[in-house]
Amino acid sequence: MKRFEPKTARFEERVRESFNRQTLMKTIGARLLRVAPGEVAIELPFHDGLTQQHGYLHAGIVTAIADTACGYAAYTLMPEEADVLSVEYKINLLSPARGEKFIARANVKRAGRNLTVCEAEVFAINDDKEKLVAAMLATMMAIRGID
Amino acid sequence: MKRFEPKTARFEERVRESFNRQTLMKTIGARLLRVAPGEVAIELPFHDGLTQQHGYLHAGIVTAIADTACGYAAYTLMPEEADVLSVEYKINLLSPARGEKFIARANVKRAGRNLTVCEAEVFAINDDKEKLVAAMLATMMAIRGID
Amino acid sequence: MKRFEPKTARFEERVRESFNRQTLMKTIGARLLRVAPGEVAIELPFHDGLTQQHGYLHAGIVTAIADTACGYAAYTLMPEEADVLSVEYKINLLSPARGEKFIARANVKRAGRNLTVCEAEVFAINDDKEKLVAAMLATMMAIRGID
Amino acid sequence: MKRFEPKTARFEERVRESFNRQTLMKTIGARLLRVAPGEVAIELPFHDGLTQQHGYLHAGIVTAIADTACGYAAYTLMPEEADVLSVEYKINLLSPARGEKFIARANVKRAGRNLTVCEAEVFAINDDKEKLVAAMLATMMAIRGID
Repeated sequence: MKRFEPKTARFEERVRESFNRQTLMKTIGARLLRVAPGEVAIELPFHDGLTQQHGYLHAGIVTAIADTACGYAAYTLMPEEADVLSVEYKINLLSPARGEKFIARANVKRAGRNLTVCEAEVFAINDDKEKLVAAMLATMMAIRGID
Repeated sequence: MKRFEPKTARFEERVRESFNRQTLMKTIGARLLRVAPGEVAIELPFHDGLTQQHGYLHAGIVTAIADTACGYAAYTLMPEEADVLSVEYKINLLSPARGEKFIARANVKRAGRNLTVCEAEVFAINDDKEKLVAAMLATMMAIRGID
Repeated sequence: MKRFEPKTARFEERVRESFNRQTLMKTIGARLLRVAPGEVAIELPFHDGLTQQHGYLHAGIVTAIADTACGYAAYTLMPEEADVLSVEYKINLLSPARGEKFIARANVKRAGRNLTVCEAEVFAINDDKEKLVAAMLATMMAIRGID
Repeated sequence: MKRFEPKTARFEERVRESFNRQTLMKTIGARLLRVAPGEVAIELPFHDGLTQQHGYLHAGIVTAIADTACGYAAYTLMPEEADVLSVEYKINLLSPARGEKFIARANVKRAGRNLTVCEAEVFAINDDKEKLVAAMLATMMAIRGID
């Protein structure tokens, strides 16, 4: 995988501060795992208040952790004066999201001045075994000053 | 807009029963508004436990109500023996999701035996004025028996 | 549908000039129909050199006319100093693209300073009857100066 | 990368036969390179009849080779009685498609009985150096009998 150079030494601190302001992540019980240049992983334990009609994790929550991982993967490569917004994403739900916990892993495919393209995979974990349940391709934008 | 013929007279009851089994919808405070053949609308009041880092509604929650509206719009046209699953979707976040409440409106673009394609728009509402904040294009699948 | 104000009176002339520089459009035999603020339509007669393995129009060509229509719909609203590039798009192929000719109709959903989001529908035409064969949701970017 | 088991020993022959029926591939000058279980690569020399307005390869042609590579990557894993159709795809255009030739490489992320999800990357080649210009995430469908 390509190696990226962060534009600020505070890239991880900035991601963790911003993540902590996302009240949704606290509401659903998600936490940041890995934060590296161009890469972020987020973990979410299953909770029975987050399901769709069959008792699996709702696709919207699968998407929320994948989107957040993509956004912060992009953010690790942005300069101090920039913030990050999601422009758009597409996600394929590959298997029912049935698991004790879930991990979303995102990485940057191309970092531009304004737009950064990321991909993420979400895995369901049961008995320490991972199964791929979703794949995302996302476009993130650096915003400077007013949003 | 094209008119659709439901395959069961219980289409609305089926949607409402299934929606009530989605614990996520209760957790976030969403409720079903309109259920008509090929069309579903869902309302979500803003809540400060559902935000991203700037205090707006998190894109994952915007997506969750759009996905759910698309899924049930497709489900209104499915026969009694079928259930619905999200195959994939793409969403553009058009404006910051800042509002007192939000409405996702979905309609079916093409209903097939196995796959149904839907689109949804999500609006933010402030002082009774609607602003478009997201647009989704989604593929839903009818499943028969166990997946 | 929302009405848009073009930023230059030459919006149609600019679209037609740019379209004429797209050698692919000439190669496949496509031509511009309607050019209005925020809206563009493109027509393509079927040709048996443009097919996939069953003799229908190849999805890549369905996509090419939808993408071009979206790009120029966005371009009608851009200022004189800007050019347009495709950032990304998603397309659903709804029915086999079997027809005497095809029309792609695009319109702008949201025009921003840098990014413009468009949607397009592609119709197959047989005996003067239109059938929807594809739906696209696309993100276009205004570029100023060299990329 | 995951290893896949083809369901027929004729998987490569079937892909090459079907590719040869795609008249678009001949029209644009594309040819099949690698065909392996779950993987297909397609090469396209640049031709000045395939451009967008700046003289680069048109996004629709970038898409056409990525879509075709995804479709045949899925097809390598389908049984004898099935044919393949594109359901939908999303593509990000990461850099201007400027090159002497282009290679689309696709691989299967998940193969199901009816739906197969693939990803593809398209590279521009100049002086034997590859540059990533596009990334696709696609859904393909197995069809049996009449579509």
